[in-house]
Amino acid sequence: MHVSALVTDLYELTMMAGYWVAGMNPRASFEVYVREMPNHRGYLVAAGLEQALEYLELVRFTPEQIEYLRRLPVFARVPRAFFEECLGPFAFEGEVWAVEEGTPIFPHEPILRVTAPLLQAQFVETALLAIVTCETSIASKTARIAGVAGARPIVEFGSRRAHGTEAGILAARAAYLAGCAGTSNVAASHRFGIPVAGTMAHSWVMAFEDEMEAFKQWEALYGERSVFLIDTYDTVRAATRIAESGLRPAAVRLDSGDVLALSRDVRQIFDRAGLVRTGIFVSGDLDEQKIAAMLEQGAPVDGFGVGTAISTSSDAPALGGVYKLVEIDRGERRVPTIKRSTGKASYAGCKQVWRTFDEGRARGDLLGLADEAGPEGSVALVGRVMQDGRRTKPSPALSDLRTRCLEQVKALPDEVRRLDEPDRYPVRISERLADLTAEVSSRI
Amino acid sequence: MHVSALVTDLYELTMMAGYWVAGMNPRASFEVYVREMPNHRGYLVAAGLEQALEYLELVRFTPEQIEYLRRLPVFARVPRAFFEECLGPFAFEGEVWAVEEGTPIFPHEPILRVTAPLLQAQFVETALLAIVTCETSIASKTARIAGVAGARPIVEFGSRRAHGTEAGILAARAAYLAGCAGTSNVAASHRFGIPVAGTMAHSWVMAFEDEMEAFKQWEALYGERSVFLIDTYDTVRAATRIAESGLRPAAVRLDSGDVLALSRDVRQIFDRAGLVRTGIFVSGDLDEQKIAAMLEQGAPVDGFGVGTAISTSSDAPALGGVYKLVEIDRGERRVPTIKRSTGKASYAGCKQVWRTFDEGRARGDLLGLADEAGPEGSVALVGRVMQDGRRTKPSPALSDLRTRCLEQVKALPDEVRRLDEPDRYPVRISERLADLTAEVSSRI
Repeated sequence: MHVSALVTDLYELTMMAGYWVAGMNPRASFEVYVREMPNHRGYLVAAGLEQALEYLELVRFTPEQIEYLRRLPVFARVPRAFFEECLGPFAFEGEVWAVEEGTPIFPHEPILRVTAPLLQAQFVETALLAIVTCETSIASKTARIAGVAGARPIVEFGSRRAHGTEAGILAARAAYLAGCAGTSNVAASHRFGIPVAGTMAHSWVMAFEDEMEAFKQWEALYGERSVFLIDTYDTVRAATRIAESGLRPAAVRLDSGDVLALSRDVRQIFDRAGLVRTGIFVSGDLDEQKIAAMLEQGAPVDGFGVGTAISTSSDAPALGGVYKLVEIDRGERRVPTIKRSTGKASYAGCKQVWRTFDEGRARGDLLGLADEAGPEGSVALVGRVMQDGRRTKPSPALSDLRTRCLEQVKALPDEVRRLDEPDRYPVRISERLADLTAEVSSRI
Repeated sequence: MHVSALVTDLYELTMMAGYWVAGMNPRASFEVYVREMPNHRGYLVAAGLEQALEYLELVRFTPEQIEYLRRLPVFARVPRAFFEECLGPFAFEGEVWAVEEGTPIFPHEPILRVTAPLLQAQFVETALLAIVTCETSIASKTARIAGVAGARPIVEFGSRRAHGTEAGILAARAAYLAGCAGTSNVAASHRFGIPVAGTMAHSWVMAFEDEMEAFKQWEALYGERSVFLIDTYDTVRAATRIAESGLRPAAVRLDSGDVLALSRDVRQIFDRAGLVRTGIFVSGDLDEQKIAAMLEQGAPVDGFGVGTAISTSSDAPALGGVYKLVEIDRGERRVPTIKRSTGKASYAGCKQVWRTFDEGRARGDLLGLADEAGPEGSVALVGRVMQDGRRTKPSPALSDLRTRCLEQVKALPDEVRRLDEPDRYPVRISERLADLTAEVSSRI
C-alpha cells in the first residue's frame, strides 16, 4: 500500500495544531462503527483491518510535506515548532482493538478502536475510515452474493468499475475474504495470494476474422484451462460450432442476452455433443438478486463472474462509518464522552461485543463496556491487535480469515441473512453502557 | 499516482500472450464510452484523462512482476520469450484521442480512443477504465450538485467515505473540475493545487469540558478563518452562547437535525447580535435534492460541505463504461469492428463528435466517423492528446478545465440539466456511421 500522511482531511491537521498549541495531548479513544444498516443489509462483514494496521505502521510526514503544510495560509499563526516537533517525528504509537476481519457486525458495534495520545488518534481518522468502510462495504455485499451462489464459485471481475486502481485491489481482497473464489485482478493476487482467474474479452474474438479461429488459437495455448466467451455475435451459433469443432473448453462464458434461456440451450447443445464436462460460466451486470433468480429457475450454470455489484457495492456504495471519540483522559480521570447531535447520538465509553451462540447459531449480541464481564458462554469479539504502534500478533492468512468468515456468516440466523427485508439481528445494550450513556448525556 | 503494471485483469495478459504466440500485433483502436446513461443523469462530465495519460506514460513491468507472472500456472505453455521480449521492454507507444476533461458527454460518444499495436492497446484496458469511469462518475454527480447550489460554494468532504485513500484523491480532483470550490483532502490539494478547506470535528468540541472553550481556543489560533461546528450538543444553545461571547467566527457549521429550521434560528440569533458577517455552512449527508429543497425554501445558507454523495457518486456509483475494439488492421486494410451482443451493440469505426451551438446553447451532437467532415459551424470534441506514447501538449491547468467545464455544462439545455427525469439530449448518428455499422453487422 502506498501510504501518504497527506491523505487526510485538513481539519485533522488544524485540530492537531490546535491541541498542540493548547498543550492538550491526553490519551483518547475513538471507535469506528456504523450508525445504521444500509438498505437491504441484514448484517455487515468487517474488513480492512489489515490495511488499516499497515497504514498506522507506515504513516510518516516527509520534509517536503511538512514544508508544504507550513506554507498553507490556514497555518499562518501556528508556531513552527508544531511542524518540527510534532509532525517531523510523527509515528503512531497507540493501541488498536478490533474485531477480526470477516466477522459479521451490526450498527454501533466497534469495528475497531484506537487509543492513543489525542493528536495521533485524531490524525488517523480519515484514512482509517476510508480503508475500513470501503472494504467492509464490499465484503458485506459479497457475502450476500456468495450466500446465494452456494457451492458455485463467484469470481470477482470488477476492477474496471472500481473507484480507481487501488480501489480495485481493495475490492478484490474484501471480496475474496467474504466468499469469492478468486479475482481477475493480478495485483490483488500478487499482493494477497488470492487465486487469479480470467477468460477472454470480446476484443479477442473480434480480432480474428472468424470467431472459431479465436477459440482454436486460445485452446492451443491454454489447453484445459480455456474458457471461451461465446456471446460476441450469436451465442447459440457459437455453441453449436464449438460442439462440432472438436474443441474441448473447460467452460464457456455467457455475458449478455437472456442468460437463463441461453444457458439451457448451450447445456443441451454441449451435452448432445458429449461436452458434458464443459461448464457454463455467466457474467454481465450480475448481482445477488439476478443470481438467486437464475438458480431458482434451475439454470445450468457452474459459476459466475461478478463485477460492478461487488467492486462498488453498487446498491449501497458507502457505509455511514464514523470515528467517534468515546473516552478521553482529563487529568487523572478517564472520562467517557458522547455526541448528542440529532439522529447521530453515540454511546459513551470503550466497548466490547459479546456474541451468544446456541448450537452453533448466533443468537444475539450484547454491546457493553470493555471492562464488563460478558454473559457466560458468550464470545468477546473485540481484541487487541496493536500496542505501542506495533502489531501484537502476525497477520492471519487471508484464506484462514475467509474460512472463518464463511462459517460465521452461515452461523447467523437465516432471517438475518435473507436478501429482502432481512430481520434485525438482536443487539442488546448492557445496563452499565445504557446507564453510563444516560449519565454522560445528563451532564452535558 | 502509483502505477503498477499488475493492476489489470488477468485476461489482458493472457490475451497479450495469445496474440504474441499467434504472431498478431496489428494496429488496433479501442474506444472508451458509456453504453447508457445511469439513472437520474441527463448528461455526463468527462474526467480522468490526465490520470489516464499519466498511467500510459508510466506503466512498465518490473523484473519481479515478470517473474511472478511467468510462474502462474495459466502461463505454463506460454514461451519464455513472451515475458522477456514483450513484457520486459513494454512501454505504451500509441496514440490517444480524447474529449477535454470537463466536457459534457453522452452515451456512445468516445471519451477517449487508444490506437496502438494490439498488444499494447489491449493491455491498458482495465486501468484506463477504472480511472476514467471513476472520475467521470464523480464529476457527473458533482455537476448536478454544483448546479443547484449556484453561487454558494460546495466543499468536497468525502475522503473518509471514498473507496480507499486513492479514490478520495481522485474524487477531490473530479469534484473540483466539475464545480466544487475546494476539498478537505490535503493530498489532493498538494497534488493538484485545489483550494483546501476544513472546519473542526465533533471530537474537537468534545475534547474540551465546555464547548465554548473549544471555540475560544480555535478562534485564538485561526482568527478570521474560524468555522465552528455547533451541533455537537444543542445547536441553538451553542449559537446563542457564541452570539453573547464576543467571538467572531467566519462561519458556523450545522451538521445534523432540521438544518432548514436551525439555519433560520441561527441566522436570526447572529443577526440580532450583530454577527451579520458570520456565515452558515451546512453539511451532513447532503446531495443535490436536499440542497435544492433547502434553497427553494429560502434557507439562509452560505455554503455546503458534501461528502459521500460526491465521493462515491452514491446514487450511481458506477458507470457502465466500456473499452471496445472499433477498428483493426488486417494486412493493408483498416477493418471497422462491432460487437453484436444483445443489448450491448456498438458502432463500428473510429469516431468523432460534433456539437452544434445556437446562441451559445448546445443544440445537439452528431456522432460520426473520425474522417467525416462535421456540420458547418459545429465544434469537434475529440482531439489528439498523445502520439507515440507522448503527450502532444502540456496538461491544461485544472482550474482552467474547471472554468470551461462550468461554461459547457451551463450551455446545455435546461431540460437536460434538470435533476429529475431530465430530457434526453439529442445525439444523431451520421449516415456514414449508420451505414458502416449496418454493413459490418451484415458481414458477421
